[in-house]
Amino acid sequence: MIERVEGDVTSPLGFLAAGVHCGIKPHRRDLALIVSEVPASAAGLFTTNRVKAAPVRYCEEVIRAGMAQAIVVNSGNANACTGPQGLRDAYEMAELTARSLGIPRSLVLVCSTGVIGTPLPMDALRRGIPLAARALERDGKAAAEAILTTDAFPKVAAARVHLPDGVVTVGGMAKGAGMIHPQLATTLAFLTTDAALSSGRLREALERAADASFNRITVDGDTSTNDSLIALANGRSGRSCEEGEAFWAFTEALTWVAQELAKMVVRDGEGAERLVRVEVTGAQDDSEARRAAYAVATSLLVKTMLHGAEPNWGRVLAAVGRAGVEMDEASTRIWFGPVEVVRDGVGNKEVLEAAAEALRQPEVTIRVDLGVGSGAWHVWTCDLGETYVRINGSYIT
Amino acid sequence: MIERVEGDVTSPLGFLAAGVHCGIKPHRRDLALIVSEVPASAAGLFTTNRVKAAPVRYCEEVIRAGMAQAIVVNSGNANACTGPQGLRDAYEMAELTARSLGIPRSLVLVCSTGVIGTPLPMDALRRGIPLAARALERDGKAAAEAILTTDAFPKVAAARVHLPDGVVTVGGMAKGAGMIHPQLATTLAFLTTDAALSSGRLREALERAADASFNRITVDGDTSTNDSLIALANGRSGRSCEEGEAFWAFTEALTWVAQELAKMVVRDGEGAERLVRVEVTGAQDDSEARRAAYAVATSLLVKTMLHGAEPNWGRVLAAVGRAGVEMDEASTRIWFGPVEVVRDGVGNKEVLEAAAEALRQPEVTIRVDLGVGSGAWHVWTCDLGETYVRINGSYIT
Repeated sequence: MIERVEGDVTSPLGFLAAGVHCGIKPHRRDLALIVSEVPASAAGLFTTNRVKAAPVRYCEEVIRAGMAQAIVVNSGNANACTGPQGLRDAYEMAELTARSLGIPRSLVLVCSTGVIGTPLPMDALRRGIPLAARALERDGKAAAEAILTTDAFPKVAAARVHLPDGVVTVGGMAKGAGMIHPQLATTLAFLTTDAALSSGRLREALERAADASFNRITVDGDTSTNDSLIALANGRSGRSCEEGEAFWAFTEALTWVAQELAKMVVRDGEGAERLVRVEVTGAQDDSEARRAAYAVATSLLVKTMLHGAEPNWGRVLAAVGRAGVEMDEASTRIWFGPVEVVRDGVGNKEVLEAAAEALRQPEVTIRVDLGVGSGAWHVWTCDLGETYVRINGSYIT
Repeated sequence: MIERVEGDVTSPLGFLAAGVHCGIKPHRRDLALIVSEVPASAAGLFTTNRVKAAPVRYCEEVIRAGMAQAIVVNSGNANACTGPQGLRDAYEMAELTARSLGIPRSLVLVCSTGVIGTPLPMDALRRGIPLAARALERDGKAAAEAILTTDAFPKVAAARVHLPDGVVTVGGMAKGAGMIHPQLATTLAFLTTDAALSSGRLREALERAADASFNRITVDGDTSTNDSLIALANGRSGRSCEEGEAFWAFTEALTWVAQELAKMVVRDGEGAERLVRVEVTGAQDDSEARRAAYAVATSLLVKTMLHGAEPNWGRVLAAVGRAGVEMDEASTRIWFGPVEVVRDGVGNKEVLEAAAEALRQPEVTIRVDLGVGSGAWHVWTCDLGETYVRINGSYIT
């Protein structure tokens, strides 16, 4: 029912995009536009940080009406901690975009990412936004590049949903950061679809997609000032996904695209060589499993171990131990890939070579069973390289 | 009343120490002894990790009786996650020490630090412990070296308390780790004194000292399997510090020594050039101030900013914003050293050069006032160098 396809935010019918250089950064593209030919249902999830960037505060207001037609995004400057001027600048960005596209300002969403605390160079944006409007095309590559900051590569994905009465398409792009803890930097993600949905149902689907993707790579509360996940549904396929099977198929496709993007953000961790799924089972409940999974996934000692492919499972056990969850050390089990390295709290020396081999794969699963209940959760993380490895990777030898 | 002196765990009367190489590590000293000539009051604070190393479980039992005469410490192997064998090995280490010194086993405390999940090489310890007992001397330098793992330098401190009727001395040594987040590795710290105190009062003083020192550098629950802070008071000065002014003077000296050691642990962060005090004021209460201070002190973006001495205060504001504490962005103030870089939530461009200069000092204070109450807290952290800097330190330019 879900077909994974090559594509981006312009894969669904009726979406155009552009990515140009307007001069916020010295040389690279720094301004993106995503535009729907018609007004679209809109839903958004934004940072929970108490310090919210101006564009986030602006978008929260626009999204309340449930409709949007364009998203303008600049990189190189986050327009965060910029006081009342920041909010005026976000409005002006929307105004400039609306004017260039001939649509109402109230249908324009605004996102920014980059340095915090410096006012936006509005001259560059005044020049750049009309330029971007003229560069709109049915190709999202330039746009996907223009939203990056320290990312090593652009992040796009798309999927087709085959419904009994036709096809709808979901496309997306995201930016993470070339940093070791992606959750400490701005995540921006944009999902487009030509399915027809009300903004309420779109939000419901988006929340489900986020819970299985971007919320699996972000530690609770460890959000940036600018994190935004926005979805637009313009109905141009003529197919409704408002109800029943169609809604669930659409949600599945949206989730798959969001997961692909989220995993790319993790994979883009600086120096990272592995995408690692941390799975906790046997917890008292799901929320304790989640807490334990994050303790493992964020542990510097575990992440350096993963980089060096050293099967130092004690670090995993110690991370779980400090998560503050119910556990029974004497019945705890740990697997690296398919290899059970700890059984009943004690390591199995015989399998260390096989365990190391499992850690050397580009995609690794670490599973911990806490042995006290049926709670389960999984999150994605990456290994941690460079200097860290020089210190911790050689610690066992 | 408190005089800071050059010294270590052997500075108080009646304490001897030794540090030898027994063969757990290939070349460096790996076994330390601290011995009191007479049985001493003992108090200890241990890791809150649910996964506790065998020596920690052993020590918790011994310390309950409130008396000890010797501490044996090995580095290179943590004896953690080693099952029932681990506990037997910890007992044997105590037994070997007791026999070598001619004292009861129940007066011997045992600590281990190093790799997790590998059984102790007991042959090395059977050879080494008698060797260490013969090497005891009134100098703690070799012992301070023998407890190190990835530390760059040994950590010792001492202080004298001038009481109306005489002098008592406090000495100490600690190990941290040459890692960027010291709280993820074992901290061991040993405090000795020739003051006379009951174990109950000694514990009270130790808790106060820890709250103002090691608990200021450790994120809640982010403890290792082996963290131990142990104090011995042997009364050899003939002066009681059980009550009144003497107790407070003693506690002050103990706190000072513990703080010196804790700050050395922070200063030993890999690649660190600065010791940074993060102070939060104006919080709703002390516990919110503490949460905000830790959010800033552990932020990778803040720590890399400190390394590059870039006055990128937006990172500090964003860290506070995700701490989940009551704050008023519009009345938040931030200082780098004496320089007020943010007033009422907006940066002051005029002072950026002065702010950068403040960050270039070897000891830096960052202060954040949240503007909503009178809660306050401070913690210590360090800057973060190397690879991190290559990515984040140049991000602002």
